[in-house]
Amino acid sequence: MRQSSLFTKTLRDSPKDEVSINARLLIRGGFISKVMAGVYECMPLGLRVLNSINAIIREEMNAIGAEELHMSVLQNKDTWMKSGRWSAAKEVMYQFQDPGGRDIGLGWTHEEPLTAVAKHFISSYKDLPKAVYQIQTKFRNEPRAKSGMLRGREFLMKDLYSFHADEEDLNRYYEIVARAYEHIFGRVGLDARRTIAAGGLFSKYSDEFQVLSEVGEDTIFYCTECRYAVNIEVVSDFGLKSVCPECSGALAQGKSIEVGNIFKLGTAFSEAFDLTYVTGNGDKRPVIMASYGIGPGRVMGAVVEMRHDEKGIMWPDSIAPYSAHLIALGKEKSTHDAAEKLYAALQKSSIEVLYDDRDATAGEKFADADLLGIPYRLVVSEKTIKNREVEVKRRNEEKLNMVKLEDIPKLLLNSRFFTYA
Amino acid sequence: MRQSSLFTKTLRDSPKDEVSINARLLIRGGFISKVMAGVYECMPLGLRVLNSINAIIREEMNAIGAEELHMSVLQNKDTWMKSGRWSAAKEVMYQFQDPGGRDIGLGWTHEEPLTAVAKHFISSYKDLPKAVYQIQTKFRNEPRAKSGMLRGREFLMKDLYSFHADEEDLNRYYEIVARAYEHIFGRVGLDARRTIAAGGLFSKYSDEFQVLSEVGEDTIFYCTECRYAVNIEVVSDFGLKSVCPECSGALAQGKSIEVGNIFKLGTAFSEAFDLTYVTGNGDKRPVIMASYGIGPGRVMGAVVEMRHDEKGIMWPDSIAPYSAHLIALGKEKSTHDAAEKLYAALQKSSIEVLYDDRDATAGEKFADADLLGIPYRLVVSEKTIKNREVEVKRRNEEKLNMVKLEDIPKLLLNSRFFTYA
Repeated sequence: MRQSSLFTKTLRDSPKDEVSINARLLIRGGFISKVMAGVYECMPLGLRVLNSINAIIREEMNAIGAEELHMSVLQNKDTWMKSGRWSAAKEVMYQFQDPGGRDIGLGWTHEEPLTAVAKHFISSYKDLPKAVYQIQTKFRNEPRAKSGMLRGREFLMKDLYSFHADEEDLNRYYEIVARAYEHIFGRVGLDARRTIAAGGLFSKYSDEFQVLSEVGEDTIFYCTECRYAVNIEVVSDFGLKSVCPECSGALAQGKSIEVGNIFKLGTAFSEAFDLTYVTGNGDKRPVIMASYGIGPGRVMGAVVEMRHDEKGIMWPDSIAPYSAHLIALGKEKSTHDAAEKLYAALQKSSIEVLYDDRDATAGEKFADADLLGIPYRLVVSEKTIKNREVEVKRRNEEKLNMVKLEDIPKLLLNSRFFTYA
Repeated sequence: MRQSSLFTKTLRDSPKDEVSINARLLIRGGFISKVMAGVYECMPLGLRVLNSINAIIREEMNAIGAEELHMSVLQNKDTWMKSGRWSAAKEVMYQFQDPGGRDIGLGWTHEEPLTAVAKHFISSYKDLPKAVYQIQTKFRNEPRAKSGMLRGREFLMKDLYSFHADEEDLNRYYEIVARAYEHIFGRVGLDARRTIAAGGLFSKYSDEFQVLSEVGEDTIFYCTECRYAVNIEVVSDFGLKSVCPECSGALAQGKSIEVGNIFKLGTAFSEAFDLTYVTGNGDKRPVIMASYGIGPGRVMGAVVEMRHDEKGIMWPDSIAPYSAHLIALGKEKSTHDAAEKLYAALQKSSIEVLYDDRDATAGEKFADADLLGIPYRLVVSEKTIKNREVEVKRRNEEKLNMVKLEDIPKLLLNSRFFTYA
């Protein structure tokens, strides 16, 4: 992509009411644009990041046998009356009457409609287990939405629902999903700890995936030696003091961002909706369920919070909007010809490259490169071209490397492949 | 995909209040599920079809230099007050107050927020032209939503917006988009005519893409010899009688489904939002805009209306949920071993195949295959396996062909590639 053609430009300022670092950097970089508190539009650069996050999530979900579907935003009051959450959740669920007087809600989670639809397809033990997921826009009334992409009133969510014949099978799949979540967070560049947390309405405990960060809204106790972690809300249940019950390491306390959670729902929804199956012996039993969430937009915001400096963002290779930011400096035709040739060669190698072909100063181009945070900066100038070289800099390193023009595609070809954290 | 693992099953009936053929067949096949009038959930099979339609749209949009982004559903009243459409569109736009008393609307089109956001990035003639699009869920209050996927209250829309310095450039790009639309409809298997129609608020005429169909809500005059077509709403403007003004062929009148529309917006929105640019001479001028829509879900519904028989759907190769439906008949181990082997070989060749491995009768399996409408039906039975053959039937043909097992992957490899209509 030529930067001169890009729909967005970097901006000097973000809106005055925007206090979160993730939103400020993402807005200044042209990744997102603000509509109102907690509501952002995703510009082309931001969509590229989100698409990469979603592609990683889809790969891991498909690998554990989950099928993708897409539920509706508009929700039927009758369906939500069955679980009692039409009233119980009215603080978070946008509810209104359409001009015809029909009560409508906006989906903020999808246990109810998913259980309702599963009744069409699950009736026998032969139909179990099943797992379906979606990546879909959800809505929650958040009175104080001040954390940018970390807490939105409109936000993308990956929600997975699984259906099982018995608790043993539920527990088996729950652990498979937990491992998939660890893969996902590792691949997007987040160090997320599986954390014991409160279970909400339907079970005593759940598991959250928490990233230690000063801007987080949660507080966790975590082991400084192993991966053990417990949300402060349930710490008293475990009688935790200063020593890790798993490895005897020292426990510490810290703020954290919740980037995922997994819940055992048991039969709470299947009983409300009479979702049952017939066993091999002809008995009728309620289906056992679980649900599992990740917010891809929140992941994007958390990555920015964890990986930035005073100049801008530092995207991990796996979700960067482009692998390389090619910058041509100066006005000499030979330099620009070399840059055009390199741009063509990179595209031919299917390397995603943003090419700064604008008529701008070196200072402006470098400042934009630091703000946008693309992993490899490639500078072509009269000086580098003299030796048929390119100045290569990783966004998160200071070192400048001179690399031969012809070696650049090879250098970049593996850059988007992940390494597990 | 093994049919025994698929989340959905085919259903004997569709909801009693569902009158449209497209929704009845799609619900019975397990492609979609109904939430309320005009609101459907997309099950895994339906999502595969939609994803293929969207992939074709993206290819054609990217090929004409449009960048993808993603706007918000929640809309700010202030933004819509600028164009006057907060009040003017209140019949179609869902509007409500959140618990904090803030007025919120649900996006039913995105000219207003897109013009607002473009102000950040367009200020000079050097920033033009620009084109951005999204594929996003939209909401319209439809008091009578009885046409299944053809008219929803919640529906997917591809909306493209272009920004130009002058009318000449607008006209140039408008024709490029019109050609891209013809490619898209051809590729998804629809014979859509570019049709002169009323221009709405901002220009005298627009262009619609209309598919002749008895279930359509529009009526067009069309030439029986060439592609000329005019919406009945503007026929009087052209003094049309019975002869085509372009080729002198006979004109006919027919009902039709509008699957796309393209509009010149002129400066209506840019003036309301003060979206201007500075020319090379330093003059300030309003940006000239156009918008272009296609409903991918409506396309899916229209394809079903145009391509079905009494037994079910007949998907075109380009958007079928799977390329082949492999059916194993009988209980012999040798038959099932051969089917498993063929299933593995097809997957190895990256051919998308639905494998009916269920313990069901031949009648049930054939009925499901006809309902689901996958282009190639491959039957493996004791009789075919004796000669190391497979019985191959195209969904839209009666003829049965016996093909050697080893020739099947080759036969299917090109089936998902499109042919322009």
